[in-house]
Amino acid sequence: MDKIVSLCKRKGYIFQDSEIYNGLNGFWDFGPLGVELKNNIKRIWWRDIVHRREDVAGLDSSIINNPKVWEASGHINSFTDPLVDCRNCKQRFRADHLAEDQSIAESEIFEKGQCPACGKKELTEPKAFNLMFKTFVGPVEQDASVAYLRPETCQGIFINYNNIRQSSRLKLPFGIAQIGKAFRNEVNPRNFIFRSREFEQMELEWFCYPPRIEEQQSPDDWFEYWKKSRMEWHLKMGIQKDNLRYRDHEATELSHYAKAAVDVEYNFPFGGFKELEGIAYRTDFDLKQHSQVSGKDMQYFDEQSGQKFFAHVIEPSLGVDRMALALICDAYQEDEQEGQTRVYLKFSPAVAPVKAAVFPLTKDEKLVGMARKIYERLQEDYLVTYDESGSIGRRYRRQDEAGTPFCITVDFDSSEDQTVTIR
Amino acid sequence: MDKIVSLCKRKGYIFQDSEIYNGLNGFWDFGPLGVELKNNIKRIWWRDIVHRREDVAGLDSSIINNPKVWEASGHINSFTDPLVDCRNCKQRFRADHLAEDQSIAESEIFEKGQCPACGKKELTEPKAFNLMFKTFVGPVEQDASVAYLRPETCQGIFINYNNIRQSSRLKLPFGIAQIGKAFRNEVNPRNFIFRSREFEQMELEWFCYPPRIEEQQSPDDWFEYWKKSRMEWHLKMGIQKDNLRYRDHEATELSHYAKAAVDVEYNFPFGGFKELEGIAYRTDFDLKQHSQVSGKDMQYFDEQSGQKFFAHVIEPSLGVDRMALALICDAYQEDEQEGQTRVYLKFSPAVAPVKAAVFPLTKDEKLVGMARKIYERLQEDYLVTYDESGSIGRRYRRQDEAGTPFCITVDFDSSEDQTVTIR
Repeated sequence: MDKIVSLCKRKGYIFQDSEIYNGLNGFWDFGPLGVELKNNIKRIWWRDIVHRREDVAGLDSSIINNPKVWEASGHINSFTDPLVDCRNCKQRFRADHLAEDQSIAESEIFEKGQCPACGKKELTEPKAFNLMFKTFVGPVEQDASVAYLRPETCQGIFINYNNIRQSSRLKLPFGIAQIGKAFRNEVNPRNFIFRSREFEQMELEWFCYPPRIEEQQSPDDWFEYWKKSRMEWHLKMGIQKDNLRYRDHEATELSHYAKAAVDVEYNFPFGGFKELEGIAYRTDFDLKQHSQVSGKDMQYFDEQSGQKFFAHVIEPSLGVDRMALALICDAYQEDEQEGQTRVYLKFSPAVAPVKAAVFPLTKDEKLVGMARKIYERLQEDYLVTYDESGSIGRRYRRQDEAGTPFCITVDFDSSEDQTVTIR
Repeated sequence: MDKIVSLCKRKGYIFQDSEIYNGLNGFWDFGPLGVELKNNIKRIWWRDIVHRREDVAGLDSSIINNPKVWEASGHINSFTDPLVDCRNCKQRFRADHLAEDQSIAESEIFEKGQCPACGKKELTEPKAFNLMFKTFVGPVEQDASVAYLRPETCQGIFINYNNIRQSSRLKLPFGIAQIGKAFRNEVNPRNFIFRSREFEQMELEWFCYPPRIEEQQSPDDWFEYWKKSRMEWHLKMGIQKDNLRYRDHEATELSHYAKAAVDVEYNFPFGGFKELEGIAYRTDFDLKQHSQVSGKDMQYFDEQSGQKFFAHVIEPSLGVDRMALALICDAYQEDEQEGQTRVYLKFSPAVAPVKAAVFPLTKDEKLVGMARKIYERLQEDYLVTYDESGSIGRRYRRQDEAGTPFCITVDFDSSEDQTVTIR
């Protein structure tokens, strides 16, 4: 994994945020190649989920909302991690991680738990710590103006459900999709960009008929549909089949709103298979909650059956950063050439940041002229690189490391027969 | 303006955020058509500024940074608005607005100012109020963990200057571009999405040689270059020429970091010409400040002249939301048809959210089959709509209101001669 982190910095994929000020734990910046990779992921997801489906509409809701949104969704009360303090060395730890490491139950921490930093048995009882970032809206810092940075993008969809349905005339089943930043004040951000405090989500909320409405596909069927469809998407993005698997959630791990959930897991170089995308059956929890707390009716009237009800929701939810990390890990290759280890990234052309590089074999005027012409033509439609410095071998290696799938070399034959070498 | 706000809601362009909870002042959500309009603006800007230029690299830095960033940039001390309180009715106001409304100087507020709410002369002295949103990183709310949501995207560029230069091998002059959210805790957000608390910026920092480096274009020349180039871009986006103008900043309005600035102004329906895009000559202020505070050398070594110096910066900076608003205002049209006022949006095809709508003239199987085929073919590459409900006139009007540039109708002639009617 260290090799990947170092490659990402060297080639301009990912930098530690505020690096010149020793960083800030859990925040990352995407460099020139990283932002292209992320943009490609987002563009393809949006095209496949929104543009190519007539039953899905897009949304871009704000990061800060009225705090009532988070009251209704349950996040103010239950979006927490259990923390313990050490009364001796004053450090803080996540109780669940600590219990797991020491093979004790969370309830035994006060009695049997040991501080991993100083070793003393001076730990407090676990206390709930809310993971939302708090801020204050308006010129006065008082309780009335407290607000939160959203910890998930889906609530923006639920609160706009009526507005979107009315303006787009969509009928069940239909989806609303959103790409946007979310924030979680993780106690221990870790594994590079896998778990960070600021991240970007691509979420689809798929609204469908509740169970037992005749002739309509049930939420369970839609859950299976999306489970299958999302796996196919990851394969289409070029991720190796052996590195992907499903994992059903145990009843005990389900979130407060979910009736069923499955993860598409990727085999990351740290710690093996971990969540890449989550698909959850959220039932009608969210729409019901918002209806109740806001007093606005968010039920659906079905002309066909004459019934009125809350739509049920299936949610495929994927992190852009996590997808980028999986793609980089999957593309990472090493081989031996002339006794040296050579590193390269093998992306599918659709996700590769730079699509092609154009080289004149030498700085000969004729070759440069031809190469520039090809470069300028391609640049109209694609992100391409032009490079005339250093030996051809060195230029190839530079592009291999950056993950550029095509290299176009203009040589002396080119000027005669109008052909180029594409590798 | 009210007509535009209402059209935006009705057609799914822009909704008030958290509307079901009575909103949150200064926050807006972009509905299905709004998100497409914004995505088109961002895509075209990125293509023109990053992809089609070999001297510009992209970046996506995080919204929350180490607070030292804002100390170095001067935002912690000087990114403030002057506020006054009324000791009688306890309300707060911006001192500069209040002074202007009552034709007095800001310094006279305490003596002569009158509360606009209760009318009493009980106002306090103006006090500086910082416009950054504050939050806390990590599990303990204490001073050590205070952080801010960025009030501008450009600082993310400056702190990554060395990393980007090293990984992309760019040589002066070159640019770094970024699109991303920024946050300002405005005391009085107003004019729909023109001045909101959460917004999205598209910023280019153009690094060039300082003045008086021989044979190199001076920052003043680059300032003129970008001034001209940005105006051309707005015209290319389809904005009417008469609605655009330049306005040079007076020396007294310049920000602490700027030596010169010009706005491209748009003639908004509220209050006339106002800032659309700002172009500022930031000198070498930012790179110098970050070098000094971080202790990292951010100077550029120029092989040609053998000199070492801080690059100077020209910054064209445009709000995505503000651009979207200008495009909507510019596209808004009314006409009379059969005694009724008809509203429509006239976008250039490149920015229009939905590119085309496909209609079968009637629900006849043959026509529907043909129309579906055309729709499905177009959907591969564009966002298109299929509509078979209601009269043709009604369907046209629906699309006109939504700003769809092309309507394709399949009629009985179509099935014979394979032609369609495009309007």
